[in-house]
Amino acid sequence: MWRLYQFPLCPFSRKVRLLLGEKGIACELSKEYPWARRDEFVDLNPAVQTPVMVDTERGVTLIDSTVICEFFEETVSKAAMLNGTATDRAEARRLATWFDTIFFRDVTAPLLFERMLKRIVYKQAPDGQVLRTAMKAAVEHLDYLDYLLDHHNWVAGSQMSMADLAAAAQISIADYLGGIDWKSHEQAKRWYVGMKSRPSFRPLLSERMEGIVPPADYDKLDL
Amino acid sequence: MWRLYQFPLCPFSRKVRLLLGEKGIACELSKEYPWARRDEFVDLNPAVQTPVMVDTERGVTLIDSTVICEFFEETVSKAAMLNGTATDRAEARRLATWFDTIFFRDVTAPLLFERMLKRIVYKQAPDGQVLRTAMKAAVEHLDYLDYLLDHHNWVAGSQMSMADLAAAAQISIADYLGGIDWKSHEQAKRWYVGMKSRPSFRPLLSERMEGIVPPADYDKLDL
Repeated sequence: MWRLYQFPLCPFSRKVRLLLGEKGIACELSKEYPWARRDEFVDLNPAVQTPVMVDTERGVTLIDSTVICEFFEETVSKAAMLNGTATDRAEARRLATWFDTIFFRDVTAPLLFERMLKRIVYKQAPDGQVLRTAMKAAVEHLDYLDYLLDHHNWVAGSQMSMADLAAAAQISIADYLGGIDWKSHEQAKRWYVGMKSRPSFRPLLSERMEGIVPPADYDKLDL
Repeated sequence: MWRLYQFPLCPFSRKVRLLLGEKGIACELSKEYPWARRDEFVDLNPAVQTPVMVDTERGVTLIDSTVICEFFEETVSKAAMLNGTATDRAEARRLATWFDTIFFRDVTAPLLFERMLKRIVYKQAPDGQVLRTAMKAAVEHLDYLDYLLDHHNWVAGSQMSMADLAAAAQISIADYLGGIDWKSHEQAKRWYVGMKSRPSFRPLLSERMEGIVPPADYDKLDL
């Protein structure tokens, strides 16, 4: 059995959990707060980041969300998330990387720092200016998502791909932390409601991070 | 013909160029400074980062160094850099990601900011404290590289892989910027001299960034 080290507001663990859900791969969850720097976790992953997946029976450790996704994409053919030609796969990987790095840098990371780490670790109030900048960046990212969805049904093309999983994972954390305003983003909203209704997504939406309450419509299917 | 948008001190472009060199794929180079935010480049890659590869005849654009490497790994079998089992490939990808993100964050990025961007863009003197911290981090990273090379001949196993290309690319930029002290890193040094002597590496070592002079032994094969 696989074991996934993660915490409820880790967007990269969510991307992996969505993939596992789509592919029907069972795994046990271990809650791991990387900032606690637990000795056994530092030994497991010198980068001290979630997610990490371990198959203790076979002695396999997988580190980094993209590496984990490529592993299961290579080994489990069900619900393939990198389809089509090599160019199609490059576009799916590009957009997954876009949400994993650029959206994360602009939106998810500052929201996590201000609204989660400052509350839990630093016992400080969030910086309103940083929050406003992140929420403004979120609007621009949703504009880009609208533009992508104007051209095809899914983020990177005519089929669901790794890009949809990465985008939904990042957006769901930003949404949990009150950073997303769906107003005038009809395309993105319709796509996101579709993602939320998938069986792979439902378990994520029912989880809560201690002490941090999401907006009322966070887990609703009608926004 | 492929065209690669890059600049001489971009570690991610170097990783791609090493892969292209190993695989024998010809490409033309276009010098692109992302911080200049040239309109056509922003249109080409909304993330405004190098490297970008374009095949203008076939209308293919590839963005992000890891995406580009996966594309050529999938389409050109010569000099495969992700070999072995799915677990072996996961380890090669993990260590490539380690150098692309953790080494870059700790060492290459602060050196590039202090010794390149401050000189070229901001016209400021480097911050000595930041440089010392980056160089101290480089020592710890070389310790980790020594440890990896104690266990096998190449960074991620018994064969050269994507991890060697990523590591050599990052280290070569840190070395160019005077951030690497090879003292007491015999394993890492021997491996790096081997990498430097490869035909794929030689063209990179002869390039210079305007106004920034590397240390005397930067392109020497005997350190």
